[in-house]
Amino acid sequence: MTIGIIGLGLIGGSLAKAFKKHTDHRVLGYDRDKAITQYAQLTDTIDGVVDAASIAQCELILLAVYPRATVAYLSEMAGKIAPGTVVIDCGGIKRSICEQCRPLAKEHGWIFIGGHPMAGLHHSGIKYANADLYAGASMILTPENTEDIALLEKVTGWIKSIGFASVTVTTPEKHDEIIAFTSQLAHVVSNAYVKSPRAKVHRGFSAGSYRDLTRVARLNETMWAELFLENRENLVAEIEHIVRSLKEYQTALEQGDAETLKALLKDGSDRKERIDSPYGED
Amino acid sequence: MTIGIIGLGLIGGSLAKAFKKHTDHRVLGYDRDKAITQYAQLTDTIDGVVDAASIAQCELILLAVYPRATVAYLSEMAGKIAPGTVVIDCGGIKRSICEQCRPLAKEHGWIFIGGHPMAGLHHSGIKYANADLYAGASMILTPENTEDIALLEKVTGWIKSIGFASVTVTTPEKHDEIIAFTSQLAHVVSNAYVKSPRAKVHRGFSAGSYRDLTRVARLNETMWAELFLENRENLVAEIEHIVRSLKEYQTALEQGDAETLKALLKDGSDRKERIDSPYGED
Repeated sequence: MTIGIIGLGLIGGSLAKAFKKHTDHRVLGYDRDKAITQYAQLTDTIDGVVDAASIAQCELILLAVYPRATVAYLSEMAGKIAPGTVVIDCGGIKRSICEQCRPLAKEHGWIFIGGHPMAGLHHSGIKYANADLYAGASMILTPENTEDIALLEKVTGWIKSIGFASVTVTTPEKHDEIIAFTSQLAHVVSNAYVKSPRAKVHRGFSAGSYRDLTRVARLNETMWAELFLENRENLVAEIEHIVRSLKEYQTALEQGDAETLKALLKDGSDRKERIDSPYGED
Repeated sequence: MTIGIIGLGLIGGSLAKAFKKHTDHRVLGYDRDKAITQYAQLTDTIDGVVDAASIAQCELILLAVYPRATVAYLSEMAGKIAPGTVVIDCGGIKRSICEQCRPLAKEHGWIFIGGHPMAGLHHSGIKYANADLYAGASMILTPENTEDIALLEKVTGWIKSIGFASVTVTTPEKHDEIIAFTSQLAHVVSNAYVKSPRAKVHRGFSAGSYRDLTRVARLNETMWAELFLENRENLVAEIEHIVRSLKEYQTALEQGDAETLKALLKDGSDRKERIDSPYGED
């Protein structure tokens, strides 16, 4: 079949390379930056260009652009996408995307499924794209209709064909709530971490813990600001929660209260152990 | 020569194994848990036991026990350590240790140097000890006299002989200030991170950022509580700093202020980039 990929950055470029490497599908692509579309063609990352005509040939369309650009692109192309086509986005938030794209899909007879690949790098752009970025990763899907098993089976097959190990189906609301914790808060905390005046003089004083805590401090501020604002209630709740927790340690330290400090540390340590256990809480 | 190692957990056990593997020195060891001392002998991790008699044979004594236990052990053994012996501890804080051990050393004619190996695992105990734990790591030293070049050269030679890549010499005060940021804060933040109610349901929703942020959440609460309390002013200052930073993002989110949010994220991202650059600020 023919697959259309909109947005040829790290995520879209890697999708294109993955389908080219691991399947026999024809891959068309488009990036609003003409030079990137041309680069993708020259390097055989894509077989051709998605445009207002060729988009009708695509049975599967994957969007890997910012949320607002996803909505803008699909609004413009809605009438040109063939009925029955499956359209999946790869954005980091799902509520507002699904609220806007599901009605478009219904109106024009194609199928919209919110998607979010749990893979990435702290670099962006097609030059970092690789065919195995998704190997072993999880793909989250937020389909409107979870009872269409044939559709889910077909989509899961496509996703696993490029290396994804698992598909997690959930609602847009649940997705945004959990992703605020697992991904958005991680980026905020890491970005805040390096603002200490001591960050400038840490050489020779750091082992793995500092490196891990600050790995995702470097980020694309335009993309993340958009994702954070689209999910602000959930992210604010997570920031409030960790600030409250941090203050508990601070108070115990200020009071020289070893027992409370130990209890706080043990609680966190035990939670981490239970979460990581295969027989754990989740 | 003969080396004495006090405390045969992950750090001390790895020191013993490293000297046995990489040098021809005779390694004596001691752990207050008799079973561990016996295990270390049975497995040839040590060649014999450090006791009130054999300690006088050691030209180098390394302590890998908690700070208070370091002071207690050296107070008890001070008169039995041979004059001229170099004694280095491996504790995570240096001010209070050096304040207490330097006078002991002077009184009895041996040399005390505060030390802190920048290596570790989030597991503890001799069963995780390995001869290459220190390969490529940095060792921090806080000698009282930084002008005794012959001594520093000798000590650096011993340290590098077991795989350390570099030695960083600093004051106890500077060590405690920077370590509060690079190591202690990292453990507090990671331990606090997993306390969100969302931590229980994250499976399928997390990629590398969550994993990195929470890696050191599992910890030995008894050891860390002691280290944190011995360095509480510095650690409280770091917690206050990151809490203040986190609240800036929160306010920008609550106000829907995309420009401020982007500026905050860009500032963190730029700092991280400068810090990591070999031509950077430090």
